[in-house]
Amino acid sequence: MAAGKPTMIDAADIAIAQQLRDKALHDDTAFDFTEGLTTEVGARLAGGPNDSKAREWVIAKFKALGFDKVWSEPVTYPKWVRRGEHAEIVTPVSQPLTLLALGHSPGTPAGGISAEIIAFDSFDALKAADAAGIRGKIVYVGARMQAYKDGHDYGVGSTVRTRGPSLASQKGAAAFLLRSAGTDTNRLPHTGVTRFADGVAPIPAAALSSPDADQIERLLKRGAVTIKLALDCGIEGEFTGANVIAELRGSKTPDEYFLMGGHLDSWDPGTGAIDDASGIGISVGAAHLIAQLPKRPARSIRVVAFANEEAGLYGGIAMAEANAKSISKAVLGSESDEGADRIWKITASVKPEARAAIGQIADVLKPLGIEYDPTAKASGGSDLSAIHAVGMAAISLEQDATRYFDWHHTANDTLDKIDPEQLRQNVAAYAVTAYLAAQAHGNFGSKPGEWAADGH
Amino acid sequence: MAAGKPTMIDAADIAIAQQLRDKALHDDTAFDFTEGLTTEVGARLAGGPNDSKAREWVIAKFKALGFDKVWSEPVTYPKWVRRGEHAEIVTPVSQPLTLLALGHSPGTPAGGISAEIIAFDSFDALKAADAAGIRGKIVYVGARMQAYKDGHDYGVGSTVRTRGPSLASQKGAAAFLLRSAGTDTNRLPHTGVTRFADGVAPIPAAALSSPDADQIERLLKRGAVTIKLALDCGIEGEFTGANVIAELRGSKTPDEYFLMGGHLDSWDPGTGAIDDASGIGISVGAAHLIAQLPKRPARSIRVVAFANEEAGLYGGIAMAEANAKSISKAVLGSESDEGADRIWKITASVKPEARAAIGQIADVLKPLGIEYDPTAKASGGSDLSAIHAVGMAAISLEQDATRYFDWHHTANDTLDKIDPEQLRQNVAAYAVTAYLAAQAHGNFGSKPGEWAADGH
Repeated sequence: MAAGKPTMIDAADIAIAQQLRDKALHDDTAFDFTEGLTTEVGARLAGGPNDSKAREWVIAKFKALGFDKVWSEPVTYPKWVRRGEHAEIVTPVSQPLTLLALGHSPGTPAGGISAEIIAFDSFDALKAADAAGIRGKIVYVGARMQAYKDGHDYGVGSTVRTRGPSLASQKGAAAFLLRSAGTDTNRLPHTGVTRFADGVAPIPAAALSSPDADQIERLLKRGAVTIKLALDCGIEGEFTGANVIAELRGSKTPDEYFLMGGHLDSWDPGTGAIDDASGIGISVGAAHLIAQLPKRPARSIRVVAFANEEAGLYGGIAMAEANAKSISKAVLGSESDEGADRIWKITASVKPEARAAIGQIADVLKPLGIEYDPTAKASGGSDLSAIHAVGMAAISLEQDATRYFDWHHTANDTLDKIDPEQLRQNVAAYAVTAYLAAQAHGNFGSKPGEWAADGH
Repeated sequence: MAAGKPTMIDAADIAIAQQLRDKALHDDTAFDFTEGLTTEVGARLAGGPNDSKAREWVIAKFKALGFDKVWSEPVTYPKWVRRGEHAEIVTPVSQPLTLLALGHSPGTPAGGISAEIIAFDSFDALKAADAAGIRGKIVYVGARMQAYKDGHDYGVGSTVRTRGPSLASQKGAAAFLLRSAGTDTNRLPHTGVTRFADGVAPIPAAALSSPDADQIERLLKRGAVTIKLALDCGIEGEFTGANVIAELRGSKTPDEYFLMGGHLDSWDPGTGAIDDASGIGISVGAAHLIAQLPKRPARSIRVVAFANEEAGLYGGIAMAEANAKSISKAVLGSESDEGADRIWKITASVKPEARAAIGQIADVLKPLGIEYDPTAKASGGSDLSAIHAVGMAAISLEQDATRYFDWHHTANDTLDKIDPEQLRQNVAAYAVTAYLAAQAHGNFGSKPGEWAADGH
């Protein structure tokens, strides 16, 4: 195909972006937002009592921060309720176990179930196993994750968590346990959603903390292990929450917008600081800096607090569906959902003619210690993956995830895990990216199914 | 006073000690012991169902390891029971709190108590406060501990925990909460014993995890905070456990002995790996290496698994009382109760004529990276502090405690926190010390109330 006109950024805008970047390193709007949401609301399980409360809190905060427009778009999803869980080793010794039910897990019958453990060391080992040995037992999968800067090993853990229970049910298992999808050795399990394939009977599913998984593995080396498992949880109808959107109205082409944000919900054991109050906070901090410029950028800038990311990207999918026909208006997007540690790399999935403009953005980010990989693709983050799939160009500002999987989805996801200095670096990168995308001459492409689709 | 004959160690024994040291670095008896006790028994709350079970396990293991004599000496102590705890912030927001009742805390009335928090940042601030402002409130003390190699900041945290509730009760408080006496930021509270002074009415007392303490402090900055606290726990009569003792019988003066060990009990949330299965394991590993020599050392070597250290040094005090009159037979002692990380320093409280022999021991320990401070005093470790006070000479093999207070008294005290390599270094140091003390010509002193007493 013929090359179009290259997307370009003016030198004067580069200079303004540099100022935004440097100012961001001394601005605590993002931290204050994160502190406020995690302290004044706390845990925000989608569909739980704090879902509405968090929404109201964010709407009030967006308005107080002076955005030009704040609105909500309803999103409906299953309401999963956790009332409690209890588990213990029954034989060969009586010992308590620390675990958390997985999101969307059904409960056990009242009084719990007792069954022998059958252990596998990976999802593939479970896949290869004969159903005859599994029937009526509690399947345990002990796959381990290592910590990496790019967090790629989460694929191992999240596969076991999301697909393991469904597979175990198909083979007749009574229940499913996994070694938590995490990289720590704390006695704090990592919850997270699981999914049962169509037609598969849901079975109770829970995550053991890493030391509890170790204990079971040590006992299994000595002989048969029986466990009693009681989960009091389940899906109870539906709940209607909302994506909350705040906009800085563009001064030239306000219908076009740069999209950034994080998700409003969190898992219930912690207060959802790194996952993902900080994600919204970073976007808020970046937009707030841009709002203080003498003039609004040409395009609009939207900050979104997405509804129910954790149980299935409900907010992101709803936004993709609502905007699919007008996707060219969403010129570029990036979501922050891998904690609040330093951004170390950017990647982008944009049209070829916009590569030079991404390079211009990357040059402004370079002094923040951020490298640019022009060969890698970007999804734009979990909440934006659906809208990216329908055609929005995406840029990924990748956080250092080395510590992220120590804490995410656990009771340890609390404000103290956020380093204010690294958080400010995130804000600087988002402010630069949002401002320059909103000021760029030409767009970044909008093409569902081609370069956009392989951005995942 | 006139100097006596110096205590001395033969060159041939130094050579044997060097071999023991090097062999220990390849021996996993200590790890296997620790693995076994924490896996096959698990948590060992003094007076709880695992108290007897642990004792039987240790007796069987001592016998299996080929000690010459294994026996128990009964020790009686209060039976404190934890059935559960629940706490939540009621105003200004409804949020759950993670805490653990302190050992020897009474329970709340069924249904719990609700009261406003009054906060202090140190024990001294509480001490200075007027009772009028405290009456009927829940006292919270938020003192913080820093991590140090010598663990000296535990003094700050343990003072708040052991003496804070009693002081708060004297000032009319309804209950007592503290920021856990620990150096971590995990959502895992550190339990531990508290003590009510004679005549002071016990009040419910519990430790908050560090992130929960932070949350309360942030909310207090915004205004009044009310908490609902329900503790189901308390002292229910007495329990008779035992010190379990294993002896390698001396070949020349078997009535004289070197004393080492750790404590059998643990707090209930974890499995008591670093506190203190490893302490017993280190002594067992050291003694087991010595047992494999062609000949028993001149003096006996005793390994003790002490009863109920955690709630008040009951086992150590009982042993001191039983042996006070024959204290000169206990020639030297060292207990391991600060985890299983590398020993970095030794100190001793011995008679002046034995300093040279301690220097000889230190020279053998030097290649293990252990320094000797001849100017500092030693207590010999918590369980030996009472027996040291009645006159036994003491040597302290000090572990690097930098990580210890991240985990101790929490659910995180599990086997994975033990580094087998560092554990072996501990065994090497104990094997050298035990063997050389048992072979030394002359003793290390036995003088209650003089150099022994200032060894604390």
